Amino acid sequence: MKAAQFWDLETVRIGDVAPPTIQDLDDVVVRVTTAAICGSDLHLYRGDIPGIKPGTVLGHEYVGRVEAVGPRVKTVQVGDRVVGTFHVACGLCSLCRLGQFHQCQRGGVLGYGMAFGDYPGAQAEWVRVPWGDVNLRRIPDAMADDSALFAGDIFTTAYGAVKNANLAPGESVAVIGAGPVGLMAVMAAQTLGAGVVYSIDRDTVRAEQASAFGARPVPSDRTNPVRRILKDTGGLGVDVVIEAVGGPTTLSLAFQLVRGGGRVSALGVTAEAHWDYPLMTALTRDISFRVGLANIHRDIDEVLRLLASGRVDPTQVISHRLPLEDAAEGYRLFHQQMATKVVLEVG
Amino acid sequence: MKAAQFWDLETVRIGDVAPPTIQDLDDVVVRVTTAAICGSDLHLYRGDIPGIKPGTVLGHEYVGRVEAVGPRVKTVQVGDRVVGTFHVACGLCSLCRLGQFHQCQRGGVLGYGMAFGDYPGAQAEWVRVPWGDVNLRRIPDAMADDSALFAGDIFTTAYGAVKNANLAPGESVAVIGAGPVGLMAVMAAQTLGAGVVYSIDRDTVRAEQASAFGARPVPSDRTNPVRRILKDTGGLGVDVVIEAVGGPTTLSLAFQLVRGGGRVSALGVTAEAHWDYPLMTALTRDISFRVGLANIHRDIDEVLRLLASGRVDPTQVISHRLPLEDAAEGYRLFHQQMATKVVLEVG
Amino acid sequence: MKAAQFWDLETVRIGDVAPPTIQDLDDVVVRVTTAAICGSDLHLYRGDIPGIKPGTVLGHEYVGRVEAVGPRVKTVQVGDRVVGTFHVACGLCSLCRLGQFHQCQRGGVLGYGMAFGDYPGAQAEWVRVPWGDVNLRRIPDAMADDSALFAGDIFTTAYGAVKNANLAPGESVAVIGAGPVGLMAVMAAQTLGAGVVYSIDRDTVRAEQASAFGARPVPSDRTNPVRRILKDTGGLGVDVVIEAVGGPTTLSLAFQLVRGGGRVSALGVTAEAHWDYPLMTALTRDISFRVGLANIHRDIDEVLRLLASGRVDPTQVISHRLPLEDAAEGYRLFHQQMATKVVLEVG
Amino acid sequence: MKAAQFWDLETVRIGDVAPPTIQDLDDVVVRVTTAAICGSDLHLYRGDIPGIKPGTVLGHEYVGRVEAVGPRVKTVQVGDRVVGTFHVACGLCSLCRLGQFHQCQRGGVLGYGMAFGDYPGAQAEWVRVPWGDVNLRRIPDAMADDSALFAGDIFTTAYGAVKNANLAPGESVAVIGAGPVGLMAVMAAQTLGAGVVYSIDRDTVRAEQASAFGARPVPSDRTNPVRRILKDTGGLGVDVVIEAVGGPTTLSLAFQLVRGGGRVSALGVTAEAHWDYPLMTALTRDISFRVGLANIHRDIDEVLRLLASGRVDPTQVISHRLPLEDAAEGYRLFHQQMATKVVLEVG
Repeated sequence: MKAAQFWDLETVRIGDVAPPTIQDLDDVVVRVTTAAICGSDLHLYRGDIPGIKPGTVLGHEYVGRVEAVGPRVKTVQVGDRVVGTFHVACGLCSLCRLGQFHQCQRGGVLGYGMAFGDYPGAQAEWVRVPWGDVNLRRIPDAMADDSALFAGDIFTTAYGAVKNANLAPGESVAVIGAGPVGLMAVMAAQTLGAGVVYSIDRDTVRAEQASAFGARPVPSDRTNPVRRILKDTGGLGVDVVIEAVGGPTTLSLAFQLVRGGGRVSALGVTAEAHWDYPLMTALTRDISFRVGLANIHRDIDEVLRLLASGRVDPTQVISHRLPLEDAAEGYRLFHQQMATKVVLEVG
Repeated sequence: MKAAQFWDLETVRIGDVAPPTIQDLDDVVVRVTTAAICGSDLHLYRGDIPGIKPGTVLGHEYVGRVEAVGPRVKTVQVGDRVVGTFHVACGLCSLCRLGQFHQCQRGGVLGYGMAFGDYPGAQAEWVRVPWGDVNLRRIPDAMADDSALFAGDIFTTAYGAVKNANLAPGESVAVIGAGPVGLMAVMAAQTLGAGVVYSIDRDTVRAEQASAFGARPVPSDRTNPVRRILKDTGGLGVDVVIEAVGGPTTLSLAFQLVRGGGRVSALGVTAEAHWDYPLMTALTRDISFRVGLANIHRDIDEVLRLLASGRVDPTQVISHRLPLEDAAEGYRLFHQQMATKVVLEVG
Repeated sequence: MKAAQFWDLETVRIGDVAPPTIQDLDDVVVRVTTAAICGSDLHLYRGDIPGIKPGTVLGHEYVGRVEAVGPRVKTVQVGDRVVGTFHVACGLCSLCRLGQFHQCQRGGVLGYGMAFGDYPGAQAEWVRVPWGDVNLRRIPDAMADDSALFAGDIFTTAYGAVKNANLAPGESVAVIGAGPVGLMAVMAAQTLGAGVVYSIDRDTVRAEQASAFGARPVPSDRTNPVRRILKDTGGLGVDVVIEAVGGPTTLSLAFQLVRGGGRVSALGVTAEAHWDYPLMTALTRDISFRVGLANIHRDIDEVLRLLASGRVDPTQVISHRLPLEDAAEGYRLFHQQMATKVVLEVG
Repeated sequence: MKAAQFWDLETVRIGDVAPPTIQDLDDVVVRVTTAAICGSDLHLYRGDIPGIKPGTVLGHEYVGRVEAVGPRVKTVQVGDRVVGTFHVACGLCSLCRLGQFHQCQRGGVLGYGMAFGDYPGAQAEWVRVPWGDVNLRRIPDAMADDSALFAGDIFTTAYGAVKNANLAPGESVAVIGAGPVGLMAVMAAQTLGAGVVYSIDRDTVRAEQASAFGARPVPSDRTNPVRRILKDTGGLGVDVVIEAVGGPTTLSLAFQLVRGGGRVSALGVTAEAHWDYPLMTALTRDISFRVGLANIHRDIDEVLRLLASGRVDPTQVISHRLPLEDAAEGYRLFHQQMATKVVLEVG
């Protein structure tokens, strides 16, 4: 079958690999119809993630149709239209039992290399999904594939980060970063009842783009975001900051933007082992901080219901639709920030 | 001063009454700029509420400017632009201390007769507001009077009923009744994260009007609402029903529309002392039921933040703006269902 | 195998029936070690529940060891010590998917007759548990069988009713009925942070017994419970009432005991189709009401953790331990209110 | 009047100072009956807090009787028995309006020096309480002074930290530090539904003392706490860690003890401006972190209800009762860890 493979730094090629088969009792094989390139795929592309072998099939955002199911699979049947979660969990270990699927003791991430379970990815004609009952959801009939695609990763990731911030209705939110995940956070915050939402990005074009999603743009190349937001909020700061870039600079910015008693929820992936936490500031100002991989399974069902209702439409961020054969071009465009979101049409 | 007075069944007239003065330490006198006629004012108009004396000044929805403050008032100053809560609470009794302002042991409702504290109403040039610190809120500078007006009663009433239903994001909601409060409930449900929202009204025009607010109209004069909603929800029913009419018929309908484990939250005012509760149905299907006067004070601050953000605009329901002098005409139009919402421009 | 069978009104006999076998892919057969007689079994015993065939094996409270598993069972293995939920759910239907296991479209109650799925009960040497992954939990090593037994029904039932009342820490609770479920509610309320807890029972001995569980006894044969509780609460009433008797009289009492803005959560089983709901009282006082079968699956995991920690010990209510052979005697004692809780030792 | 004054490092003396009078409209003067020495007073005593002038009257834990009230005070009257919050808030600024009293833009801490508002303290015969309506609560008649004393600071501080950890019923908790605040956290966790609670202290005697409060002692001078807790929890770690010591070492320990997806809530006061946050660990394991001064006003009312019910008794930690005259001795004993909690009897 055709599949997008990682070969080397900034080198993705379409290759021909053996199609997957059912290996375990709980496996499901899905014929992929649409896949997408995730911002975190760029970490692999750029060589930030160790342990990825040449030839690895990439991709963890996908929808498709069930092609085959293992003998213990209960919830999906051959022919079902499904969306998969980007991380896969066993559903049986102690942490899964506590609802902490992202902390699964046996799981991993599709197409993300050795450190994440060495599972072949979904930018391919077929993908094997371990523990299919846990990691697949049927797509409601009325929902388009494109919409469901966002439930398996980036919309739900952003949505989860907003929930982790314990957003109360009417509260103000600053989203740092106006890439695809940042834009999802803008949408998710509004869906969950936010009042004013700011979108901060050092690229004016990107920040302005967030206006179309209901945010007030704060282009940090032109405007000091701290000054702007303190002015707007009577010197208090916002109730919630969603950090969607990653790294010490934007984390520190988050602590300057948030009001006393507020919450910082970070979803930007970072490579730093440590960070110089503003302990005294956090102590006197009572700031809550959470950074963590998303627990897609916790939120995907309610996200699918929201998407099905038409209340929110993440497909607006799609800038490019390419055939799977052009995956390399898709990676290049996204890497060079010439694309907001690239969708690969597979079958 | 000029004031709209109740004289008899369906008889409201503008009269000349003595303007209010500060009588208690915590009083505030507000110069009214805009008032509105509430659906519950029609109960007085129609003679449904006992204990209203001829000559009573009507009205409990209003915004204005602070004209005078008693010596213990701390939170508002002369000249402040303010919105008042429709029910007034002392803030000091045991129930207020528990946050149950609508259960205040000394409070009442402005302009609603003897049974509700015998307070002169706000469809007048000035109104005396008891316990002003508790029952007034400063209007944010950027917010229009018209918008704030809805925070003191009907938007917040509907919003509270949705909160009382413990709505989870993505859940489906059926709102029974597409009058002004029903439309507020449609808006509030979406603001609080609802997925699909249905608006049921036996008047097709009213039901269709709800489309403009994001609801799916269910005109019950043409469509069996139970059949329609069970069909749409795969036979389950909706997660939440907001009953915004009042009375046994629509309450019973609510129990037919809600899914097992769902919630019915009623805000329609009713005159029945008892109702034949479907106990066995509720027991086997585990239905939660709540009916109750709104606790405006619980929610008004977050509602004001939502309105200030521009995320929701209840002023869309205003169909008529009349000078205070034409209050009688306003009552007549609203009573005859020729107006959706009547606002009285006072000063 | 030996099993307790229902034959006629107030007639239970130990009989010899064919032991169960695996019939479906998801079945588990459990060798029962301990079972218990539930208050709801007395409804069958007294003939209140239609549709129970002579010879039906009774019982839905049990612990035991897994004896055999169907080919799709994942979470338990032969030899595991397990507790079962009293109602069984498929885990796959739309309502189970929403977490509403007690509303399962295919489930029922073990040993409870035709109207509840016609499943043979667990007061027997072996029991077949449908959808074993959904309806069984492994018992933590350090936990005694007796303790786990209460997690499958009455403790979790009472615990769920307290949670349904949205109890806030420090709130006052009145529990109506000091039978085994009422005593569980007293314990559960305290575990969940209640302040003062009252136990109301018309039998002085039973009410006083609740003292040992931390409640303040209100024997309603001697004391007017409304007067007593209004006096204690400065005329307000309690924040929460748990109704654990069933029927119109105690439901009405509940509405007299609860404060404005309070919550009534009923878990007493009743046979009335309707009840004369105090609508005007509920409206003006803003009372929340919920009555419904327990959703054991929602709460059993956290209950097992609480029991494992030793923080709460429901085994205190056990008054009689009898061999399975003496089940008839157990039913008689419990029916005549000569036993608080009867446990049957099976194997 | 007599008052305990700070003069120099480790030098507290009883002096004679002018009694306070009403200075502002909202002031209340309280005749102190009982005060206590707080662990945070030791920071002053040891010279850790800059900006404390010689002669400053110390103390922020107190109960007493209202002696005089300013003209705008509404909620307390002369003669009322009251407990005060350790930090004082205006109740009127934007942050107080959001319920963030600990972030008040004008408030401070009684007896804590220039950086905290320069308010004279309460280890004295009288104390002036600014904004008395906000910072005092009437003590229920049946509650002893000693019990109420803990509501104004340390019990409520610990209780708030447990709430900030979003503890779910049945969850496991490790409390680092078995000083008075750590013991309060042990009690608060249990009150709020915790399952197993560990008390970690490097002093075996102190750790063992926690057994009397329901905790499992982990003396870290003898036992490796990480190894012990991972062993007990099947390698997962606890759901919640309450850090009640302060400083980088115990904060780092907290991150080693907590399970993936768990929460660390720190209430130990620290002097470090920054801390080397384990960012990669927190990211991959999804740890929530909160450190902050307590918001007493948020929780004091529910704490008072819990204390009034007798469900929890913090007075057990009192090791010494001294007359105010012996305050210096009290400071010395507490400083040398020869006292667990010192109460000063004033009048």
